[in-house]
Amino acid sequence: MKFSVTVTLKKDVLDPQGKVVEQTLKNMGTNSLIGIRQGKYFEVEINEKDETKAEKQINEMCNKLLVNTIIENFSIKRI
Amino acid sequence: MKFSVTVTLKKDVLDPQGKVVEQTLKNMGTNSLIGIRQGKYFEVEINEKDETKAEKQINEMCNKLLVNTIIENFSIKRI
Repeated sequence: MKFSVTVTLKKDVLDPQGKVVEQTLKNMGTNSLIGIRQGKYFEVEINEKDETKAEKQINEMCNKLLVNTIIENFSIKRI
Repeated sequence: MKFSVTVTLKKDVLDPQGKVVEQTLKNMGTNSLIGIRQGKYFEVEINEKDETKAEKQINEMCNKLLVNTIIENFSIKRI
């Protein structure tokens, strides 16, 4: 079973990496750009037939390693 | 208008960063894990009312800066 995990910075957390990308695009002439925020993306494949159990395990992985829950949010989706 | 851009490594491209995360999770006792591949994620906000035009602009940003199309794939979604 395959899942995607998307990790984003919480709303009020500064995102210097995203700001640099944003500024670079603006310097390259993209005038319509309002803002960019950068996050992380994982594709996780797991050996588990039950979708609920699999999601629970992935949730655990996120809390244990993949996500810093103090400053980041995450969402899990089956793919 | 807000879009999400997900960038993933192409199938045959090695992903050492993902491998390290995978090995770490296995060492932490996640036995059911088959594999992890890591990618990038952007949330792009753009000042453009027409969805087709907006998507075209984001596509251009991807090809110009955000994505290395030799080794990476990307997908754009409206959020």
